Amino acid sequence: MRIGVLTGGGDCPGLNAVIRAVVRKGVGVHGHEFVGFRDGWRGPLEGETMPLDIEAVRGILPRGGTILGSSRTNPIKIDGGVEKIKENLAKGGVDALIAIGGEDTLGVAKQLFDKGVKVVGVPKTIDNDLNATDYTFGFDTAVNIAVEAIDRLHTTAESHHRALICEVMGRHAGWIALHAGMAGGANVILIPEKPFDIDRVCAYVESRFKTKYAPIIVVAEGAHPVEGQMTLQAGELDAFGHVRLGGIGENLASEIEKRTGKEARTTVLGHIQRGGTPTAFDRVLATRFGLQAIDAVQDGDFGKMVALQGTEIVRVGLDEATKELKTVPAGRYEEAEVFFG
Amino acid sequence: MRIGVLTGGGDCPGLNAVIRAVVRKGVGVHGHEFVGFRDGWRGPLEGETMPLDIEAVRGILPRGGTILGSSRTNPIKIDGGVEKIKENLAKGGVDALIAIGGEDTLGVAKQLFDKGVKVVGVPKTIDNDLNATDYTFGFDTAVNIAVEAIDRLHTTAESHHRALICEVMGRHAGWIALHAGMAGGANVILIPEKPFDIDRVCAYVESRFKTKYAPIIVVAEGAHPVEGQMTLQAGELDAFGHVRLGGIGENLASEIEKRTGKEARTTVLGHIQRGGTPTAFDRVLATRFGLQAIDAVQDGDFGKMVALQGTEIVRVGLDEATKELKTVPAGRYEEAEVFFG
Amino acid sequence: MRIGVLTGGGDCPGLNAVIRAVVRKGVGVHGHEFVGFRDGWRGPLEGETMPLDIEAVRGILPRGGTILGSSRTNPIKIDGGVEKIKENLAKGGVDALIAIGGEDTLGVAKQLFDKGVKVVGVPKTIDNDLNATDYTFGFDTAVNIAVEAIDRLHTTAESHHRALICEVMGRHAGWIALHAGMAGGANVILIPEKPFDIDRVCAYVESRFKTKYAPIIVVAEGAHPVEGQMTLQAGELDAFGHVRLGGIGENLASEIEKRTGKEARTTVLGHIQRGGTPTAFDRVLATRFGLQAIDAVQDGDFGKMVALQGTEIVRVGLDEATKELKTVPAGRYEEAEVFFG
Amino acid sequence: MRIGVLTGGGDCPGLNAVIRAVVRKGVGVHGHEFVGFRDGWRGPLEGETMPLDIEAVRGILPRGGTILGSSRTNPIKIDGGVEKIKENLAKGGVDALIAIGGEDTLGVAKQLFDKGVKVVGVPKTIDNDLNATDYTFGFDTAVNIAVEAIDRLHTTAESHHRALICEVMGRHAGWIALHAGMAGGANVILIPEKPFDIDRVCAYVESRFKTKYAPIIVVAEGAHPVEGQMTLQAGELDAFGHVRLGGIGENLASEIEKRTGKEARTTVLGHIQRGGTPTAFDRVLATRFGLQAIDAVQDGDFGKMVALQGTEIVRVGLDEATKELKTVPAGRYEEAEVFFG
Repeated sequence: MRIGVLTGGGDCPGLNAVIRAVVRKGVGVHGHEFVGFRDGWRGPLEGETMPLDIEAVRGILPRGGTILGSSRTNPIKIDGGVEKIKENLAKGGVDALIAIGGEDTLGVAKQLFDKGVKVVGVPKTIDNDLNATDYTFGFDTAVNIAVEAIDRLHTTAESHHRALICEVMGRHAGWIALHAGMAGGANVILIPEKPFDIDRVCAYVESRFKTKYAPIIVVAEGAHPVEGQMTLQAGELDAFGHVRLGGIGENLASEIEKRTGKEARTTVLGHIQRGGTPTAFDRVLATRFGLQAIDAVQDGDFGKMVALQGTEIVRVGLDEATKELKTVPAGRYEEAEVFFG
Repeated sequence: MRIGVLTGGGDCPGLNAVIRAVVRKGVGVHGHEFVGFRDGWRGPLEGETMPLDIEAVRGILPRGGTILGSSRTNPIKIDGGVEKIKENLAKGGVDALIAIGGEDTLGVAKQLFDKGVKVVGVPKTIDNDLNATDYTFGFDTAVNIAVEAIDRLHTTAESHHRALICEVMGRHAGWIALHAGMAGGANVILIPEKPFDIDRVCAYVESRFKTKYAPIIVVAEGAHPVEGQMTLQAGELDAFGHVRLGGIGENLASEIEKRTGKEARTTVLGHIQRGGTPTAFDRVLATRFGLQAIDAVQDGDFGKMVALQGTEIVRVGLDEATKELKTVPAGRYEEAEVFFG
Repeated sequence: MRIGVLTGGGDCPGLNAVIRAVVRKGVGVHGHEFVGFRDGWRGPLEGETMPLDIEAVRGILPRGGTILGSSRTNPIKIDGGVEKIKENLAKGGVDALIAIGGEDTLGVAKQLFDKGVKVVGVPKTIDNDLNATDYTFGFDTAVNIAVEAIDRLHTTAESHHRALICEVMGRHAGWIALHAGMAGGANVILIPEKPFDIDRVCAYVESRFKTKYAPIIVVAEGAHPVEGQMTLQAGELDAFGHVRLGGIGENLASEIEKRTGKEARTTVLGHIQRGGTPTAFDRVLATRFGLQAIDAVQDGDFGKMVALQGTEIVRVGLDEATKELKTVPAGRYEEAEVFFG
Repeated sequence: MRIGVLTGGGDCPGLNAVIRAVVRKGVGVHGHEFVGFRDGWRGPLEGETMPLDIEAVRGILPRGGTILGSSRTNPIKIDGGVEKIKENLAKGGVDALIAIGGEDTLGVAKQLFDKGVKVVGVPKTIDNDLNATDYTFGFDTAVNIAVEAIDRLHTTAESHHRALICEVMGRHAGWIALHAGMAGGANVILIPEKPFDIDRVCAYVESRFKTKYAPIIVVAEGAHPVEGQMTLQAGELDAFGHVRLGGIGENLASEIEKRTGKEARTTVLGHIQRGGTPTAFDRVLATRFGLQAIDAVQDGDFGKMVALQGTEIVRVGLDEATKELKTVPAGRYEEAEVFFG
C-alpha cells in the first residue's frame, strides 16, 4: 500500500514522533510505502510531496516541529479543493491518507472520507480540548514549559514584593492554565470557562501579600472578566489580522495595579510553549498514536481517528474530533481553587 | 478532626505535593488539624511527631523528597507493633491516619484498618507497578530523567561507534525501561517480564552499527537473560581488559563486547531517578491524590486508597494496593519492539 | 565583628549564593556575627532587619531571588537618608556592611564609604554591563534560559515558515542578546550598541526563507533602528510609569511583515530570565564573590568591590562599579555577524 | 585554500559548534573549501573523508557529539603513520589542517607541524585540565549535568537519612568535582590532587547527620585516600550486606557505612556528563574557538592553538597544550572547604 502523511494546523511537540512511528511500523512491519505531503492540506491540494522513508524519519523522535511542514490551508473553503485533492491522490498512486492535526484538519479529513477518500486521523491539539481522547500530545510539554517558567517567577515575585502574571495558551479551554497553575503553585488561575470577578482576584492578591510570599497569577489567553468589569482596551490589528498588543495578561496587570496599588508584571509565554523537544509523556503518546494509526490503515479501518482512553489507544469515529470542545469541568476548577489566595 | 500523616518506603517525587494538598484542603476547607509522623511507620510506632500546618507545607510543592522523612520500618514484623501504634494514636488524640506509600506501607495500613484504625491510603511507587491505578506519581519524573540521560547518550554512542547501555530502575516491572526506552529512541529495551535472548540483542546491536547511528540499550535492573545464557560474573575482565562489575547493565556490556567485538559501556542512573523536583504531571497527580484522600477522611470513607482511572481520581479498597503486581503486558512490549534494531 | 548584609536592585540568580557564602565563611572561619537588612537600602534606612545566621542560609544556594528582599530605595535621594543609615548602623552595633547590587546600590555604597561607613560591595547585574569584572553572576543563567527558549522557537519557525523574534533583556548593553543569539543560532542579533538597518534585517529574513530553515531574530529590549527608520509607536504608560505595550520586538515583527509579506511573531521573555535557580557557573561565581567579600571585611579592606578577572576573584575600588558601562565591543558583534542571514 | 578538519579523543559537548564556526566563517568570509576527516587521526591516516560544507553544518550547533566521528588512533605510534598522513593530505589537496582534540590529539598535531604540516589546534577536554586556557568547552556542560544530579540527590538523602555519594569524571584533575560540588552544596568534595583522610570524611558525615540535612559527597573518579587507608576491595560485602563493587565512589560508601554505621549509596554519573546539547557558555566558547582557529589558518599562523584568556580568545603555541596538567590549586580547594561538614 502507498500511504500519504500530512500534518496540519499549529506546531505541537510530538508531531515528528507520530510520523516516525507511522513510517517505522508501516515499512518495517506492514511493508507499506509512504509519501509525505508538505504543509498540511496544501500538500495534496497542490501535489507537493517529499520522500518519506526509514532514513527520512531517523533521529526525529526528540525534535519539535514537523519535518512535513504545516499550514492552515483548508481545501473545503477552496473552490474545487476536494476534487483537486482526490485527483492528486489518484495521480500519485496514494491508497490512503494519515492526517495529523486538530479540529480543522480532522474536519477536512472527515469530509474527504465522506467523499470516498481512505483516511485515518491522528488528533493534535496543544490545548488538550478534544473530547474523544483523555489527552493529546504536546499538552504535557506545554504544561511543563509553563511550570518551569512559573517556578522561576516565584522567586522574583517574592524578592520584589510584586504580583506576577503568567499568560499561557488556551483561547477556548483552560487546560494548560489549570494544570500549569496547579503544578506551579499559582495563587489564582483564570480560565475561559469561568469569567472571573476582578474584585475577588484582587482580594487574593492582597491576602497573599500578607504572607512572606508574593502572588503568582496564571491566566489563559482566553480568560475574561465577568461582564461590565475591566474595560478591555482593544489592541491594534497587525498585517495578518492578529491582535498585537495588550492581551488579558497585560490588562490584568494594569487593573491589579490600579486597584491594589501593588506592582504587577506580566510574562506572556507565547510560542515557546509549542516548540522544542517533547516530554517523555508526549513522545510515548505520540508514538503509540502513530502505531495505532498505521494499524488502522492496515486493517482498512478508515474514517477513524486514534484516541487515548485510560492507558489504552483506541479508535473512534473521525466526527468525534469535531463534535464538541472539551472544556475544564467545574469539578476540576474547584480542585484548583482550594489553593487560591 | 485531628489527622496524622506519614510517608513510608522509598523516596518519590510528589510526596510533598500530596502532603501539601492534604493539609491545605484539610485545614482550609474542612477545618481539620494535622500532626506529621516522622519516617513512615516509625513515627506512630515511637510516637515521634512534627507540626504539620499551613506554614509547614508552604513552598514544598516543587520539592522532591518528603518533609516527614521516610523509613522501611514495618510494625507488623515488630512484636506488639500494631498495639503500640493504636496506643500512640489514642494518646495523641489522632482520629484518622493518611498513609502515603507503596505496597508495604499500604499493606500495614490495611492491617491497621482491619484492627479498627481509621486509615486512608495514597499509593506511591516510582515503578508504576500498582494494579489499582493507571499511573502513580514519581513515575513520570523518573521516566523524564532517564530520557534526558538517553538523549545525551545518543551523541556519545555515535561519535565513538560504541554501544551504550542505560540501566534504569525496575526490579519486578519494566515500566520505566519501557517508557524511557520508547521515548528515548532505544534500539533494544530489556525488561524483567520477558527474559531476553542475548543472541537477538547482539544481532540488533550489529545491525544498528551498519547505520550511521550507534546502539542504545535500555535495561531494567531486574531484566535477565533466558536460562543458561550469560555466565560472566562480577569482577571478571571483559574483552577490552576492563573490570566488569555489578548489575545486569555491566554484565550485558561484557557479553556484547565478547560476542560482537564492539565496545560497550554502561551508565547506571541510580538514585537520580527518584530525587528532585517532580514533573508537572506528577505534581498535578500527587496534588489530586492528596485532595481526594482528605475528602475520603472527611467522608468517613476509611479502608480506601485513592487511584487514577482515566482522568478521574477514585477510591478503591486498600487491599487493591497489595493484590497483584502490574507488570508490562505483552502488547505494550510489542509496541516497543517495532523500533528495535 | 557584627556585619550587615543587604541586596538592592533587580532580582538576579545567585544573590542567595553570595549571602550564604558570606555567612558561612564569616561565622565558620572568622567568627563574625550577621544581621540581614531587608529590601536593599530600605533596610538600614528604616532599621528593618532580619536574623542572618548559619540556619538562615541553609538550603538557599540553589534558590533564585534573595531571602533579604530587594528594592530600589535610594537613600541619597532622601533628605537626611545617609545620616539616618549611619545612625541605624550605630544603633544596631553594625561594624561593617556588605552591599550586593548594581550600579545604583554600589553608587550609594561608595558615597557611604566616603562618609566613613565601612562597606564592601558585591557587583550584581544580570546584564553583564559592569566594566570592572569579566562577568557578573545571573548573566549566565539569563543567557541559558534565553537559549532554551530560542532552541524551542527554531522548530516552530521552520514548521510554519514564519520569522520568530525573541526579545531579551538589555536596555543599554546587548550582552544577553549577543551570547544567547550566538548560542541559539540566531540569524540576526540586534543590540543597543549598534542601531540596525531594517532593510538589512529584512534581507537576512528573506535570504533565510530560501533555505529549509526559518529566521530567528534575537533582539535586546534596548535595540533600535538607525534614525528615521521604523516610526516606533509609543506604548501606553501604566500606573508605575512603565511602558506596557509594544516593545522593539513587537514593532520589529510588524515592520518585517509589512516589508517582506512573511508572517512574523514575537516572544518577550521578560521576567523568567531573572528568576529561578542559578546555573552552576553563577552559583560558583556568586559563592566565590561572597567568600572574597567577607575576606575583604575581615582584612579591613573597605571601599572595595569584588570582581572576576580571568579565573581569579580580585578586589577593585567601589568607584569602578559606576565608572562606565561595559558595552559589547565591535569585535564581539562582528564575530556574531558571521552567522547572520 | 582547502582545509581538513578532524576531531579526536573523547566526546565533548561543543565539538559540533567548533566545526560549524570554522566552516561558516571559512566558506562565508574567507572563501575556503573544507574536507572532513573521519574519526580523528584515523581519517587522514586512512584517507577517509566526508563532505564538509555549509549544508553539512546546518543545525549542528546545539547537538552533542561530533558529526566527524572520533577515535583514539595515534599515528605517531603507527609505523610510517606520519608519512602516510602527509601523503594523504597531499593526495587530497589539503593545504592546512584544523585538529580539535585533547592533549593526545594536539600532541600529534605538534609533531606533524614540526614535520611541515600546516596545522592549527583547538583544545578540547571536558576535564578542564589544560594549562594554556582559562576554560575548555564541554566542562561547563559536564558541571551543570552533575549539579542537576546533585540537586536531585539532596532530597533523597534527606528523606532517607542516608549519605549519598556522587562520583564524577576527573582522573587526574578535580575541576568537575570542585565546581559541581561547590555549586551543588556538597558537604565534602574529594579530588585527585589531595589524598583524603577517611576519618575526616566520616567526621563530616557524622556532623552533617546532626542537622536536619544529610551528607552529599562529590568525588572525582581519580580521588584516593592517603596511603594505608581503606582496604576494601571490589566485590566485598558491606556493613549492610550489599555487594560493593568498583570505583572510588562505591568503596567510599562501604567505608563510610563500616565506620559510621549510617547507610551510604553511590551514583556514578558516567557518560551522561559528556553527551548531549552544550550549555550556552560552551556553545559560545566553542564557536569563538572555531572563529579564531579559521582566522589563524587564514593568517598563515600555524603551529598554534586557540585559547581563552579572560574574555579574549588568543593563540598560543601548540606545545602549550601538552606541557603541564592544570590541576586544582590549593587555594581553590580551600574555598570549597569552607562549606565542608
